[in-house]
Amino acid sequence: MTVERIDDLQRAGYRLIQDPAKFCFGVDAVLLSWFSRVKPGERAIDLCSGNGAVMFLTDARHPGAKWTGLEIQEDVVEEAARSILLNRTGDHMEALAGDVIGAGERFGRASFDVVTVNPPYKKAGSGLKNPSETKAISRHEILCTLDDVLRESAALLKDGGRFYMVHRPERLTEILSGMRERKLAPKDVVFVHPFADKDATMVLVSGIRGGRNSVKIGPPVVIYETPERYSSQYLKIYSE
Amino acid sequence: MTVERIDDLQRAGYRLIQDPAKFCFGVDAVLLSWFSRVKPGERAIDLCSGNGAVMFLTDARHPGAKWTGLEIQEDVVEEAARSILLNRTGDHMEALAGDVIGAGERFGRASFDVVTVNPPYKKAGSGLKNPSETKAISRHEILCTLDDVLRESAALLKDGGRFYMVHRPERLTEILSGMRERKLAPKDVVFVHPFADKDATMVLVSGIRGGRNSVKIGPPVVIYETPERYSSQYLKIYSE
Repeated sequence: MTVERIDDLQRAGYRLIQDPAKFCFGVDAVLLSWFSRVKPGERAIDLCSGNGAVMFLTDARHPGAKWTGLEIQEDVVEEAARSILLNRTGDHMEALAGDVIGAGERFGRASFDVVTVNPPYKKAGSGLKNPSETKAISRHEILCTLDDVLRESAALLKDGGRFYMVHRPERLTEILSGMRERKLAPKDVVFVHPFADKDATMVLVSGIRGGRNSVKIGPPVVIYETPERYSSQYLKIYSE
Repeated sequence: MTVERIDDLQRAGYRLIQDPAKFCFGVDAVLLSWFSRVKPGERAIDLCSGNGAVMFLTDARHPGAKWTGLEIQEDVVEEAARSILLNRTGDHMEALAGDVIGAGERFGRASFDVVTVNPPYKKAGSGLKNPSETKAISRHEILCTLDDVLRESAALLKDGGRFYMVHRPERLTEILSGMRERKLAPKDVVFVHPFADKDATMVLVSGIRGGRNSVKIGPPVVIYETPERYSSQYLKIYSE
C-alpha cells in the first residue's frame, strides 16, 4: 500500500506531495535550490524532476520565473502535478512526463534560460538490485546518463544560459570534462562535506552555455556540527 | 645586487638557500609536501623544481627516497645544488638543469614512482610584464604549459605511479580533463581556502598512472583563522 504525505516546504507557503516508498527530497534538493539563480521572467526547466521538490524550492527562493519539470516516471510526475494544483502554481509551473533524451528536440533548442538538475548519481551497474523500482531509477543511470543530461541541457539552453547541477564528487572528472565537451563551461563549484574534517559527499556545479573555462571554488558547505546538530551555516542556507 | 638568504626549513634540520629577488617557496610548497606520499626506496622527481623547496620539504616528511629535481633556470638550479651540499643530501638528491619538455625521453619512460610538481600557474598571456624575469618564468606558462607537465609526468611514471600537483582552482576543468586524457587518473583533490568563507585559492590534486577515474574530495584546508593568525589546522599541517 502506498501512503503519501504532504510536507510543508517552509517557504512561500508551498507544500509538496511525497511518497516515502518512492522518493523524498533531501539535502541535495535544498542545496541545489540555494545554489541556483533564477531571475523573474526567465524560463527554467528542471530535469529528472521527480516529485517537483527542486522546482518548488527554487521557485520559492527566486520567484517570477516560468518552470517546466520533466520526469520520466509517470506516477511521480502525477505527484508533482497534484502539488501544482495544491499550491495553485499552475500559472507558472508545469510537470511533464517524458525522457531527458530528446528533450532538446521536444522543447526546441535554446529555449530556456536556466536548467536545474538533480540526476541519478550512480553508474547503472553499481550495486543495483531492482532496476524497475522507482528509487533505483532515481538513483542509478538506468534511463539517463550524465552525458545525456549534459548534452540535452546544452541543447535546451540559450547562449549564456545557466546550468545548475548537484552530483557526487567521485564523478567530478567526468562532470567537468563532459561539461566542457558539451559547451557548458563550468563556472562555480561548491563541495558539501558532512563534517568539516570529512570528504565531500556532494558537489554543486554551475555552467554557462558557451562560456569560458574558468572555475571558482566557493567556500565549502559543512552540514553538521555534531552528529545530532546541523551547522549554523546549513541552518542559514536552509532558512535564508 | 642579489642577496641570498639561508632559511631553516624546521624539518630534518634542512636549510634552503633562497634569493628573494628570484623566488621563495610559500604555502603552496608546504602544502604540496604535506599532500604527497613518498615511500622509502622509491624514485621521485620534482618538476619545475626551482630552488628545491618541494624536494627538501617532502624528503624531510617522507625520508628514504631518491630524488631528482628538474628546473630549467640554471641560476636557480645552482641554488638547489648548493642547498644539497649544505645539507649533505647528495647521496639521495640531485638538482638538474633542464626542460620539462622531453623529460620522459631524457630520464626514460616509466622510470619514477612519484612525480611532484608546483608548476607555473598562469597562462603565458595573463598580466605578464617581463617574460625573461625569473619570477615570471616561475609563475607563467612561458617555458612549460600544464599539458607539457601532464604529458611528461605520465611518461616518467611507472604504471600505478603517483602524481602530486599544486595548482590554481580556476584551471580545475583543464587539470582534471587533461589528467584523464594523459592517463593520470585524478584521485584525491583538496581545496585550500584562505578563510573558511572565501573561495579556494589553491588546489592539491593527486593522480594514479593508469588508474581508474574516481575522485575523492578531501576535507578543505583553511589557512587563516583571522588575518593575523594561521588556523590550528594549518599550523598542524606545517608542524606534523
